[in-house]
This record gives sequence, structure tokens and C-alpha cells, in this order.
Amino acid sequence: MSVGEMASGAKLTVPVYCFKAKDNSGPNVYIQANMHGAEVQGNAVIFQLLELLKHCSLKANITLVPYANPVACNHKNGEYTLGRFDPITGVNWNRMYHFDESVIEPFAAQNIDANEGEIKERFEQLLLEEVDKKLEHNIWGLTTGQRIAYQLQRLAHQADIVLDLHTGPISSKHLYCPEYVKESAEYFNIEHTIFIPNEFDGAMDEATFCPWWSLQQAFQAQGRNVVMGQGAFKKESFTVELGSQEQIDLDVAKEDAQSILAYLHYQEVIADEQFQPDKMTRYACYLKDYKALYSPMGGMVDYLAAFGQPLAAGEPLARILRMDNYGDGEALHYVALEQPVIPILHFASASVNQGTELYKVFCNYFEL
Amino acid sequence: MSVGEMASGAKLTVPVYCFKAKDNSGPNVYIQANMHGAEVQGNAVIFQLLELLKHCSLKANITLVPYANPVACNHKNGEYTLGRFDPITGVNWNRMYHFDESVIEPFAAQNIDANEGEIKERFEQLLLEEVDKKLEHNIWGLTTGQRIAYQLQRLAHQADIVLDLHTGPISSKHLYCPEYVKESAEYFNIEHTIFIPNEFDGAMDEATFCPWWSLQQAFQAQGRNVVMGQGAFKKESFTVELGSQEQIDLDVAKEDAQSILAYLHYQEVIADEQFQPDKMTRYACYLKDYKALYSPMGGMVDYLAAFGQPLAAGEPLARILRMDNYGDGEALHYVALEQPVIPILHFASASVNQGTELYKVFCNYFEL
Amino acid sequence: MSVGEMASGAKLTVPVYCFKAKDNSGPNVYIQANMHGAEVQGNAVIFQLLELLKHCSLKANITLVPYANPVACNHKNGEYTLGRFDPITGVNWNRMYHFDESVIEPFAAQNIDANEGEIKERFEQLLLEEVDKKLEHNIWGLTTGQRIAYQLQRLAHQADIVLDLHTGPISSKHLYCPEYVKESAEYFNIEHTIFIPNEFDGAMDEATFCPWWSLQQAFQAQGRNVVMGQGAFKKESFTVELGSQEQIDLDVAKEDAQSILAYLHYQEVIADEQFQPDKMTRYACYLKDYKALYSPMGGMVDYLAAFGQPLAAGEPLARILRMDNYGDGEALHYVALEQPVIPILHFASASVNQGTELYKVFCNYFEL
Amino acid sequence: MSVGEMASGAKLTVPVYCFKAKDNSGPNVYIQANMHGAEVQGNAVIFQLLELLKHCSLKANITLVPYANPVACNHKNGEYTLGRFDPITGVNWNRMYHFDESVIEPFAAQNIDANEGEIKERFEQLLLEEVDKKLEHNIWGLTTGQRIAYQLQRLAHQADIVLDLHTGPISSKHLYCPEYVKESAEYFNIEHTIFIPNEFDGAMDEATFCPWWSLQQAFQAQGRNVVMGQGAFKKESFTVELGSQEQIDLDVAKEDAQSILAYLHYQEVIADEQFQPDKMTRYACYLKDYKALYSPMGGMVDYLAAFGQPLAAGEPLARILRMDNYGDGEALHYVALEQPVIPILHFASASVNQGTELYKVFCNYFEL
Repeated sequence: MSVGEMASGAKLTVPVYCFKAKDNSGPNVYIQANMHGAEVQGNAVIFQLLELLKHCSLKANITLVPYANPVACNHKNGEYTLGRFDPITGVNWNRMYHFDESVIEPFAAQNIDANEGEIKERFEQLLLEEVDKKLEHNIWGLTTGQRIAYQLQRLAHQADIVLDLHTGPISSKHLYCPEYVKESAEYFNIEHTIFIPNEFDGAMDEATFCPWWSLQQAFQAQGRNVVMGQGAFKKESFTVELGSQEQIDLDVAKEDAQSILAYLHYQEVIADEQFQPDKMTRYACYLKDYKALYSPMGGMVDYLAAFGQPLAAGEPLARILRMDNYGDGEALHYVALEQPVIPILHFASASVNQGTELYKVFCNYFEL
Repeated sequence: MSVGEMASGAKLTVPVYCFKAKDNSGPNVYIQANMHGAEVQGNAVIFQLLELLKHCSLKANITLVPYANPVACNHKNGEYTLGRFDPITGVNWNRMYHFDESVIEPFAAQNIDANEGEIKERFEQLLLEEVDKKLEHNIWGLTTGQRIAYQLQRLAHQADIVLDLHTGPISSKHLYCPEYVKESAEYFNIEHTIFIPNEFDGAMDEATFCPWWSLQQAFQAQGRNVVMGQGAFKKESFTVELGSQEQIDLDVAKEDAQSILAYLHYQEVIADEQFQPDKMTRYACYLKDYKALYSPMGGMVDYLAAFGQPLAAGEPLARILRMDNYGDGEALHYVALEQPVIPILHFASASVNQGTELYKVFCNYFEL
Repeated sequence: MSVGEMASGAKLTVPVYCFKAKDNSGPNVYIQANMHGAEVQGNAVIFQLLELLKHCSLKANITLVPYANPVACNHKNGEYTLGRFDPITGVNWNRMYHFDESVIEPFAAQNIDANEGEIKERFEQLLLEEVDKKLEHNIWGLTTGQRIAYQLQRLAHQADIVLDLHTGPISSKHLYCPEYVKESAEYFNIEHTIFIPNEFDGAMDEATFCPWWSLQQAFQAQGRNVVMGQGAFKKESFTVELGSQEQIDLDVAKEDAQSILAYLHYQEVIADEQFQPDKMTRYACYLKDYKALYSPMGGMVDYLAAFGQPLAAGEPLARILRMDNYGDGEALHYVALEQPVIPILHFASASVNQGTELYKVFCNYFEL
Repeated sequence: MSVGEMASGAKLTVPVYCFKAKDNSGPNVYIQANMHGAEVQGNAVIFQLLELLKHCSLKANITLVPYANPVACNHKNGEYTLGRFDPITGVNWNRMYHFDESVIEPFAAQNIDANEGEIKERFEQLLLEEVDKKLEHNIWGLTTGQRIAYQLQRLAHQADIVLDLHTGPISSKHLYCPEYVKESAEYFNIEHTIFIPNEFDGAMDEATFCPWWSLQQAFQAQGRNVVMGQGAFKKESFTVELGSQEQIDLDVAKEDAQSILAYLHYQEVIADEQFQPDKMTRYACYLKDYKALYSPMGGMVDYLAAFGQPLAAGEPLARILRMDNYGDGEALHYVALEQPVIPILHFASASVNQGTELYKVFCNYFEL
């Protein structure tokens, strides 16, 4: 799949792997990786999924796309890969998907009496047409990121289950899960889950479930009850954060592939009983309680707090070294919070400016 | 004014210059430059303003802030200065100002019977308090850009006229002007004006006028008529685009300073008659008609269209060289539009990816 | 020609265009462009050469390579293209060519009695073998830049005349010419020439002529006189600086192509009489007198000196704005030299740190 | 100590900490850190040294300089800090120190009969004058990096023992040690040492010992025997590689500070017996056997080889994932060497181009 051209004319393509089930009874699946340039581990997970799926009995189709954003994954910036945004515009690569909410209400009104099979078929069709209109020739053109995002979105809209594989900077594993399918979070081997509401901010996961969730709400407002996550509305979409960026570990990738297969077995995408989730304590919080902590000063940071463990109020997350202050007794500054949190990820470098995001943490967390 | 700290602890400060009028009868003025790192010409304009204002008779206070964003203006990226966004997060430095619309309606309700003097005083106070609350100690901290933006916004909220000096990449001069004071655009020596509506997107100009415009609309909805741009609502805010980035030209800066003084004379900020706008054909369009054209292909661009002149439909804006195609007769690809436009700016480099913004143009333009 | 692979596996190739002469009596020619990423105008010159050469009568073979370094020419760094070095290592892309001086003396000793035809054939063969050895499988591998440089060098070693098309940052046209063929400089339409000695520093031009020049000197030391630039030693190699980086101008490129054809006509590569050099005052200096001026302070620079014109001692090259000093009478600092110079190029940005290269100038210049 | 100015005029300073011994009988010491922007751990080691030295009994003066290069340590490039070179020129910050070999022979001739005390005093004086001449006003100016390097070099030339604290990208600890003081390597708690010859390449360690080593050789050539590392020639200089870049760990820093104090106790700089080197197997190789392995292909790298342990010939160092090749059986490519090596460091990112440096390894290593 051709997604872009560079200044020399070099074409950038994305490999697409498809498994077709003989009897396609389960929900279809779309999995992509590496939309952000530095977040490469998902490619290794797709490698291990391809290896494992060869031996599985499939009950639904699975499409897998590694290197989803070759512009980003080839963009070295010094030794590192530029992570999260178009280096020319600054726009986050994962904020460019399309959803025009204004199509929802008219569709609901027109299909208020349709059966669920008709709704599913027609609404999928509508979503594809919306994206196709964007991709059609347009005198003003598309941005680099839109051209990539819309092509990936075409694939995602044809699936019922979507997994977008990301990583944090330096990070524990965690999962973004829509609030209406909380129970699904327990089938991944991931200890931390963030439950997200029906608010579209341009990301792949939201672009997949927000239209259906909004449709369900529009039906409800018009007096028809359908249940999100069931029947025609069986649409699940997750951002799976696999750990730290800038790293490939094929052994860990195999474990993550098995975790994904445990979820797919639960969803009856594969029939292979051996893929079962591990027993573990799983913590969750709501998106509004997933908070960023910004550095109160410039300096060099010794990150202290272990990921994934509850940290008591007042315990230090980090200490910041300020050698220019040495001798005034203030060369070390401790950073703590006044409430218990679970640290999930921290910044990729020890050197921070005043205002750099230091940590992201769960507040008001609870066990699943 | 201290706005940030770097990793070594080095403090970044912003110089603030104030002229105080003996009898402060006119509207107070705030002018800043270089919020975007590469957009340096505004500093030279402030230099020339300082030189010229020494000899002016002031009727209002003027505050001038060059190097408004020292984090950005010191951030070299190779030979160039990183232009428009925080290099760590990708967020545009000029999208971080604060406006919480939810304060408007309650304020309007509470002050429905206040006189304009009271409204002006109380609402200015409210806006300052809103920003101060953001700047107060906060356990989660502020981003690097917010800390800078909010401090500048404190200064801007104390003025009635705000000029934010920017530049385009490679660009003609142009002006962003709120729709309610179209006539003011004719007092600058700038041939191209974009009229902008009351929609807050985080920029300095919007952060200054949107609260007042929204308040005027809220009063109107509650049955009280006040006129935007007059009396207590005499608030004008412009983004002044001075030409191309990465350049200092002190002679051109003097002309731009004189252009600004012509506007300030019109506004009765200075009494000096010699500052009068030039006669020129001025074009304008609405923000919705100020369009970006994205490159249909990767390649190397020969930008052909002259800035500022109407370009007939079908006339080429650019030709794109693709040496990898030479021999197939397609080494040169012409880019044209199907409608007349005025080209205002183009991309800073000849090398573009597919989807890079090539030009920004006025459509549906008209003479002022 | 495949020269590299990116992280996604995307292959980077270089287009190679060859004109074969029916009777190949003249010296063979190799022309490349865009070894430095931002220096794109040479591609446009090659485009115009291809267009013009279609109608020429050739007396020798010509090989043309645009986009010589696709790694660099696709490497956007913000809006701009990273200019001169490998973004991972910092090594200048034009300092990676190969020349091992230790092969010269043994070759001279072994061929002290060979005729010039034999010398030419055998030494070309030796140089190719040297490069081939580098390109052969090697357990330690090659750097990204070496892999590109050595493949280009293979093409250059097969030619007698080599033109490496570059640009300065913001620059007038100028030519690097080896000292032994000063007269050739008068056949290009380029007003400024730098004469360079026999010192190898890794650049393409040097990699082409230094081996032959060193061989000539080794023969001389061993008592055999051959003349550099004549007979078997007719080897000429130039770095042609076409003006400023980050720009494509196809009209100017046509003039530059005609200038190159004037030189090739002089060299009897083409028979077409219409290509003749323009009459102009040509200035030159020796490499040791081509000096860089580093900024005495951080600040924002208004570059004043016009390119290409002699500038009297004491006349300002630039003035540096320092708004943080305003009020102390030192906001403007003038930079001048105590000797007459010809300014050739200046830095690409107005924003400089203390120690940034401001200008490069000819000292002790003379007319050709 | 002021070392530079940025575009806004912001001054960059370096903190200098000095401990003065009451009776200064031992060799004086100079320690600096963070010449490369991302190599921050040395700052933490200097912090711990300052804390420990408070309680030590000093027999010589010690000068410590953290943040030696504030231009580099404040230069964020995306999330990371640009590591090793001036972002404008590409020149390695640790290749800009000064040594003009031409002063050696005349000095040796003039001082052939001087006693060692005179030699030490006069030669130190000469080296300081050489650097001072560079720092004096010069019409052409200095580069950003030279201005920093020369000021640091002034401090280093006044010491007898110089430690330059660096880190690798992702790396084990290792030590660069001049060949003439091999025994000193056994007093640091560092398992891997590279012995370096008397070849000046611009680095701080070389800039410190090469002049003296060259002087010793010049005396020898002139018939006078002095011994390098003894008497007036007791000059030792090391580059201490503390592990990985972009990390601060104050606990590990304390161990490294103790390791340095063990060496300083051995050198009789401090009298405190408790600082003794640990027992460990120490490996070493010569600089010519410290080899870089470049990636044979673009791809994503799973680094397999553990640092610091001998790796048998044929054992894989890394496997490279190439998802674009999946299905052709070549998605994984193993990288191995045909000889036993000790891996010391690897590249900072999993994403590599063809030709990126993958690993650096000891060949022909031996136990100390």
C-alpha cells in the first residue's frame, strides 16, 4: 500500500498481511503498529503474531500492518527516531484520523427502523465513503499525515476489532479501553488500563469506536435502544501500549503476541484454547484521572518511582539535580505528589526544561 | 521577566520595555515579537519602535516585549531555528494561551446592569485572575509553553490594543484582523488582510479579543446591546505577519515600525501627525477563504507565483521537479488552481514530501 | 543504483543518466548533484543539461547523477533539509571519499618507464580496485555515508572531468578549482574562484585529482617529468557552488547548464560552438585566503555586505541586534574587518550563537 | 565561567568548584563532565564527589566542572538531547581542543639541560600561553565549540591528573587510558580499558597528555631520557565512560565517585584509606582493536549480546527485523562476527539505516 513520496521521489509503502478464515463467523480484526516513529516494538509483536497465527484455527479474518507510518519510522533525528509528530508541522501522527459527527443524527433518523444487520452494513458503508471522499482527488490536497491516516482508517473501518500498537517513552505496558467494554481489558496480559469516554480527539481507537458509540447514543435519543459492544454494535478498539520506545525485543514480543491471542480467543476470532490470559492484579483509572506531571524546574532527573506499583502520597517520584545550585543546599530537589498514584511512564531523557512532562500517573485508581 | 529554565539550570528571561504616557487618555498598547523561534523580524521592528517612540508624544502607555519566547528563539535545529512548535511535544507555541468560555455567561448575568466603566474594570480583573490561577502553584505544573504564554497574556490583558508580531515562512506581509474592526486594517501599510471570526484556537490575538467578543454576544443574548470595538469594548488585537522568517532587516523594520505608528496615531495612542498610512490597494479575504495547498507529490519545487498579486485561474503556482521520472516525459509537474487566488506565502524549502503545505492563498478576495 | 536502506527496509536509489558519444575522442565527464541534502539546485542544472545535451553533438561520454545522496536529500529537519552531515554521526557527507596515499609511491616506482597510455589505464584500474575493495563484503561493514560515497567515486574514477554541484547556505556562485588548471576557471560563468592545493580532505573533487597530482609529484621525485592537466594526466575536477541552498530555480539552472556546456565545449567534450563563456570580471583567491568569520556574540544578524563585490577595509559586513542590551546604547553591534575582502556567502539564518560562522570571504583576492 | 551566548543574548556559564589542599604535595586534579550534551551522568558523579570530598583529607587541589558544555547540554532535539556534535556544523564537541605539535621540538632543544622542575614550570606555561593566544581577541573569531574547549583546556593544563567524564550511547563502563600508565587502570572500578597511543585527534584526554608525551619523545630523540608518567612528566589523563547516555542515577554515581576516589587515593591526592579499588576481572585492548560494527542493512534491531562478557566467534550480536521481507523467510537477519569479542556498547535506538554503527567491541582483548 503506497502512502507517500519523499523529496527524491522515493515511494513509501506499507506492507499489509491478511489471514482469511475459511468460515468467517467471528468478528474481523485489524492490527497496526508503528504509527509513531519511535514506537517500534509493535512491529516485533506483529512478527510474532504472524508466526503464531500460522498454527491457529481462525474463525475470522485478521489484517496486520507493521510500519504503518514509514515517513515517521524512517525519520531519524540524531541517533533517535522522531517520536510522535510530523517534523514539519508538529501535528501528532495519531491525531489525524477522520470523524465528522454531523453524519450521525441523519443516519440514525433514516435507519431508526432498520434491523441490526442493515445498520451494520449501511453504517460501515457510510464510514468508508466518508474516508474515500477525503482520499479522492481534491484540488487542495491532503497533508502527509492525513494521506497515511485515511488509508489505514479504510482498513480499520472494515474490521470489528481494532488494535493500534504503540509504546510510551519509558513505560510500563498499559491499555486504552473504551468504557463500554471494560471486561475485555481482563483478557490482555496488561496490568494497567485507562477507560476512555466517547470523545473524539483524532486517534485511531477513537476513530473506530466513536462513530458507533455516537450512533448508539443518537438511536437512544431517538428512542431506540441498542447496546454498545453487542450485535451490530460489537466494535472494540484499543490502543495497546507495549512498553518503551526505541526498543525491539523479540522475546517480549512473543509474550505480547500471546496476550493478544488470549484476547482474540475470548472474542472467538481464534479457536485455540491454549491462549488464555494470565492471572494478575489489574489496575485501572478513568482518562480524566490519568494525569501528567510537569517538571517544576529545569534540571537533570533521577527517576525514582517504579512503574506499575501504587506509590504512597508524599513518596518521591523523582529527584532533580541542579549542580548550578550546589553549595546553597539545593542541588537536589525531590518531586512528590500529595495523593497515592500509580506511575505508568516517564520522560525519555534525564535532561528536562522547566515544564517538560516528567511522569504520567494513575490517580483514583481501582482494581479490576 | 523570567519565563523558564533549561536543563543546566540556565534561566531564560524576557526583556520588557514600557513607555508611560503623562496623561494616559488613549488606549493602552501591548506589542510582542518572536513567539515563534524563527520569526525574528519583529524584534527589529520593536527596536525601531523604541527608537521612534523616544521622539513621540504619547497619549497612552505602550509595553513592548521582544524575544517573547526565548526557549524557541534559542532553539537551533541544524543551521535554522525551529519555527513553530515545542520541539519536545510538537505543540504550536501560539496555541497555548488561555480562555475558558464558561466564565462569560455568569459574568454577563451578574453585570447586566453595570455601566461600561465597571464592566471594563471587572472583566479585565476577571481575565487576569483566570490567568493568575493558572500561574499559581499547581501540583501538576505547567508545560513549558503555557508558562511562557500565560505570563505574556497577563501583560496583554492589561492593554486595549495588542499586536503580536510574526512572520510567515517565505511570505509577503499580511495582517490577521478581527471582523468587527475591519476599518483598522486600512491604517497599516500591509496590502493583505485576513478577517477572523470569534473562534478561539489558542492564539494570542484570539485570547485577547475572543473574551470581549463573547461577552458582547452574551450581553446581546441577555438583551443588552454593547458595541464591539467601542467604549469599554474598545479592544483590538492583530497578528501582524511581517514577511519571511529567519531574516533581520533593520531598514525594512523601520518602515514596519512607521506603519505601526500610523495605526497607533489613528488610535490616538500617539499625537504625532507625521505617521500616516500609505495609499495602496489593500486586498482581504475571510479566514475560511485563506486556504492551504498541499503538494500532490514529493519532489523539488520551483515556486513561480509572485506574492500579493492576483493569479488567474489555471496559471501555475509552482513546478515540481522529479528527476527520478526523467525520460518518461514527467520530470516537471505544474501545480495550478481552478480559481483566481492571491498567493500570500510558500513553504520555506524547495524539498517537499507528498502532502507538505506548498502555498497559502486568498480565495474569494476583495479590495478594501 | 542502490545506495542504502532505511529502517523500514525502504531502498534508496540514485538515478544515473549516461550519454554515449559515437566517437569518444574527448575526455569523459562525470557530473553529480545534491550530495548535501539542502543543496538541491544542482538537480535542476542536471535537468537542464539533459534537455540541452539532447541537441548537442558529443565527442565524449557524459554521466549525470542527480539526487546523489538520497539519505540526505530526504532528511527533513523541521521545515528545512538537514544540510551537510550525517544526522546520526555529524560527519560531513562530502568528507567520506577514499584516497590512500600509500599506494602512490609504489605505483610510480613500478611504472616509471611506462608510457602515458599505460599509466592512465593502470592507474585508473588501481583507483577502481581500491574503491572496490572498500565496497566488497567486509565483516565490519561501511558507514552509511561511505557506502554512498564509494559508489559515486567508482563512477567519478572512470571520468577525466568531474563536476560536483553544490551550493552555499546563502551564497553567490563560486568555483573550487585545482591550482594546476587555473585557466579552466575562465570558461565557467562564475565570477569567483578558489584555487586549491594538493591536499586530500575527503571531498569528491580532491578524491578525483589528488591521486593523479600525487602521482605526478611522485614521478617528479623519481626523476620523471609529467605535466598535471595534460596527456594521461588530463584530469580536472571542480566543486561548483551554484548559489543558495533550499532553492530550485529552473531558469537560473538553464543559465548554469549553459555555463557548464561552455566549459565542456572548451574541453572538446561537445562540438557546439554556441556555448561560449560570458565576459565578466573574475576574482580568485587561494584556499588559505578563503576565510570564515565567526560571530563575536550571540544575536540576530542583519547581513549587510553584498556578495561578490570588493568591500573596503572597515566597511561593515553585518550588524547584530541585541535587544536584551537596549537602553545601554549597545543594541546594535557592527562587524567589520581590517582588510579588503570579497564576501562570498553568509549563514542561512539571522539567529546566531556566539561562534557561529557568519560570512566566508576572499582575502588577498586578485583578478583572473 | 562564561562560555557562550545564544541568539537572544542569554549567557551560558559553567560552574567551577575548587578544593584547595592545605599542603599541596600531591598532583593537582581536574575533573569535568557533560562535554557531550546527552552524557549527563558525570554531573551526578561530580555531585557525589563534592559530597564525599567534604569529608576527605586532601593532599592536592581538585577542580571540578559539571555542565562543561551548556550549549550542548541544553540542546534538546525532540525528546532527547543532541549527543555528540555541534548541531550547526556537525563537529564533535570533543574534537576541538588545541595542540600544535610544532612547538615541541624547539622547546625540547631550548630546555635540553633544564632540570625537571624547570621543564614542568616552563612547559605548563607554554601550553597555557598557546591556549591563551587562541582565546585572545582575533579578528576572525572562534567557533562556538572552540571557545568552550579552550577555556576548559586552560583549567586542565594547570592540573597533573585530568578526568573527562563521558558516557556511551547504551553502554557498559569503560576507560580510555594512555599506554604509558597502564597500571593506573587497575585502580578504577571499571572492567574495560582501552589503551591509547600518542596520537592527537582533538579530544580532552589527548590534549592533556599528548604534549607531554611528545615532549618526552623529543627529549629522547635529542638524547635526554625522561620517563613519561614520572617526575615532571607525571601527567595522567583519562576519558571515563560511565555507562549510558540520557540517564541520571545518583546511587550508581556514588559508586563511580568512590571508584574515582580509589584512584585518587592511589595517586596520593587524598589520604583516606577507605577508598580502595574493588577486585574484579579487568579486560583491555589497544585502540586499534576497539572496533565498530556497522549495520549491513536497514531495519529494527534486537540487540542480543550482553555487555562486558567475552562473546564466542559466531555467536549473534544482534538480530535485525525486516517486516517488509516477511514471507520470504528473511524477516530476521542475525549479525555475528568471526572472532571472539567483548561487546562494550551499542547504538541508542532500535531503528537503524544501512551503515549505522551497531556495536563497538574489543577484539584481541586480554586480562589486566
